[in-house]
Amino acid sequence: MKTSQSRHSSTKVGILGLGTVGSAVARNLARVPGIKVKRGCDIRRLRFPFPVSHNPKDIINDPEISIVVETMGGISPAKKYILAAINAGKHVVTANKDLIALHMGEILAAARRRGVSVLFEGAVCGGIPILSALQENLSADRIDEIYGIVNGTTNYILSKMTEEGVEFSEALKMAKEKGFAEADPRSDIEGYDASYKAAILAAVAFGAEVKWKDVYREGIEKITAEDILYANEIGYVIKLLAIAKMVDGQLDVRVHPALVAKSHPLANVSENFNAVYVKGFPVGELMFYGPGAGGNPTSSAVISDIVKITNSKYKMQNVKLKQFKMKKIEEIESRYYIRLQAPDRHGVLAGISKAFADKKVSIAAVVQKETVGNLATIVILLHNVAEKNLKAALRVIEKLPVVRRISNVVRIL
Amino acid sequence: MKTSQSRHSSTKVGILGLGTVGSAVARNLARVPGIKVKRGCDIRRLRFPFPVSHNPKDIINDPEISIVVETMGGISPAKKYILAAINAGKHVVTANKDLIALHMGEILAAARRRGVSVLFEGAVCGGIPILSALQENLSADRIDEIYGIVNGTTNYILSKMTEEGVEFSEALKMAKEKGFAEADPRSDIEGYDASYKAAILAAVAFGAEVKWKDVYREGIEKITAEDILYANEIGYVIKLLAIAKMVDGQLDVRVHPALVAKSHPLANVSENFNAVYVKGFPVGELMFYGPGAGGNPTSSAVISDIVKITNSKYKMQNVKLKQFKMKKIEEIESRYYIRLQAPDRHGVLAGISKAFADKKVSIAAVVQKETVGNLATIVILLHNVAEKNLKAALRVIEKLPVVRRISNVVRIL
Repeated sequence: MKTSQSRHSSTKVGILGLGTVGSAVARNLARVPGIKVKRGCDIRRLRFPFPVSHNPKDIINDPEISIVVETMGGISPAKKYILAAINAGKHVVTANKDLIALHMGEILAAARRRGVSVLFEGAVCGGIPILSALQENLSADRIDEIYGIVNGTTNYILSKMTEEGVEFSEALKMAKEKGFAEADPRSDIEGYDASYKAAILAAVAFGAEVKWKDVYREGIEKITAEDILYANEIGYVIKLLAIAKMVDGQLDVRVHPALVAKSHPLANVSENFNAVYVKGFPVGELMFYGPGAGGNPTSSAVISDIVKITNSKYKMQNVKLKQFKMKKIEEIESRYYIRLQAPDRHGVLAGISKAFADKKVSIAAVVQKETVGNLATIVILLHNVAEKNLKAALRVIEKLPVVRRISNVVRIL
Repeated sequence: MKTSQSRHSSTKVGILGLGTVGSAVARNLARVPGIKVKRGCDIRRLRFPFPVSHNPKDIINDPEISIVVETMGGISPAKKYILAAINAGKHVVTANKDLIALHMGEILAAARRRGVSVLFEGAVCGGIPILSALQENLSADRIDEIYGIVNGTTNYILSKMTEEGVEFSEALKMAKEKGFAEADPRSDIEGYDASYKAAILAAVAFGAEVKWKDVYREGIEKITAEDILYANEIGYVIKLLAIAKMVDGQLDVRVHPALVAKSHPLANVSENFNAVYVKGFPVGELMFYGPGAGGNPTSSAVISDIVKITNSKYKMQNVKLKQFKMKKIEEIESRYYIRLQAPDRHGVLAGISKAFADKKVSIAAVVQKETVGNLATIVILLHNVAEKNLKAALRVIEKLPVVRRISNVVRIL
């Protein structure tokens, strides 16, 4: 009875498209209580713990399925299926940026008429909950400016050009080798991918109808190693930015490379990470940073949308706080930085090393700094070690005749 | 009729405590439709567009008020008033970190019994919507580790020690002058403030009852300029971190200074900014950055909690997208970086400067780079200018006999 009841009380989800994102959603939903994937749909023959059909109607027409997840990508036939699911009274969660950027107005109007929800957090910046922040947390703020690093491929390429001084073509090759660029990388390189995300960010931040074809777009293909070098000399890095601003009642939405001052929080977003910087009132300056793509991160966004539609049981007052044992500081493990002073003579390092080794504490690096009077400053970095072992070793070391004083001990993140 | 109707349909809020945060909430709520401050309470005699009483019962016993905002701070009498408001069937929004850190369990249990909401986004990191992200967006993720820079005073002090090489006492003096440290800064310096926030972050992230007195706490008072210098030499900065981890079913919650690798996103959080880094599964690594304190940012968090309780009208499908004029790229204004090549001879800069001046384009800096053959590379930074003026100037410049080629033009953020 219990099994049957819980089976009937859980929310049933259907997934259209079981590629990287769709299959991660299926895999990670297994950990979420109260939500079950009843059926998937893919043109390929795939094995999952639920039936996979070739016909989307098997999901759209299933009265038990209340939420349809669309992770096929592309405009056609995804748009047709999403509209059919909405008209069948189902909530829709999608990670389809091209489709939402081009047809958001039409899709939301259909959802409004039918009284269902359409959520698309996964369409912009993978695991970063930026749309939710704009729609919910900042809903009463006035949003002034958004600057986003929203494309991991181009950010990886610009990062490599910056760090290693290589030209665009060489960095693109590295990105392809790392799996951060597709065989045909034009949609990323030329800024199309970023322009879809810019259009969605502007629409959500300003409640605005954004015609994607009016979004100005410039890619990174003209940026040279020389530009990056000169920008560096004057205190800047070069980033591909998605920009959305409201200026005197007019929308300014565009994608192009820009110099970003090294002191700006966006300047330090490197590799294939994404980040969105938001300036609003009264909140001030915020930045949201995280993985912009990939199955697992994007599945987190899709699942968060599903949970949002399903229930409100995660509201704090409904969570009964659980008891856990608290670790004492002696029980934690960490890497450590140690600065100590010792008379500048033989036997110092031997004594210290032995004391550490006796307590199974492993040294990562030792730097001997300047000698003042008869005292040398020694900086030691330790590998991961239990704090109680470290303390036991330090108790021995501070009594060594070759050590004058342990000046400081700081944990390393 | 219309006025009277809208007056009756709006949500009535009462504010206990009209200091920096409470008065910012009152001021900024005026912009939010459907929510009205009916009454405030403060021990001082203050002038607001609503009545301000000295007696909290005027708010707690007012049947029209459905949401009580507590921005008094401190444990007593704030706790008594919050419990009274809950028992009177009112939702509570508070920014009181000490109180929530010490008595979260009791307050949430009272709210659960009475069926009301208690939200406290403003209690942790001012304007950064970190609790909302943990409770809602990441509710289906497994949270593994949280590292937060949650105290602006200590981050400002450590930043100044790093940037200017000054000692702790000097940096503390600078913080006091800037208004970033209180006259008695011990709660910040010794890590108490951060430990309250660490306890709340751990409770929300792990649904755990966290006994605040079990949170290990170490302040920044022992960090010297020398430590910061040596850390820098080996690629690290020193930050005061609030740490919350779940390790093998045990909570690890603590506050202490730590070396943070310069490549870590937290390393670049400087001045009095806050940031919280979260590692979870499937989402991966996220970081939320923003202003950690101050009336306006904290009011954004408090108001967002009020809106959350009030309605769900900000759900995207309920927003009718509005039409705005889109700015053309020629209409935007920006700063620019220009790289061009010119024969290395007299008259080049004169010619370029005149062309810019004729189109009202103002030069911020010029750097002449190395000469290759007969060609010099010149890098020019421009002040803010309309793109159409820039383009007009560039059309003139590229035809100047003294200019060989405009190699690149990049906008500056």
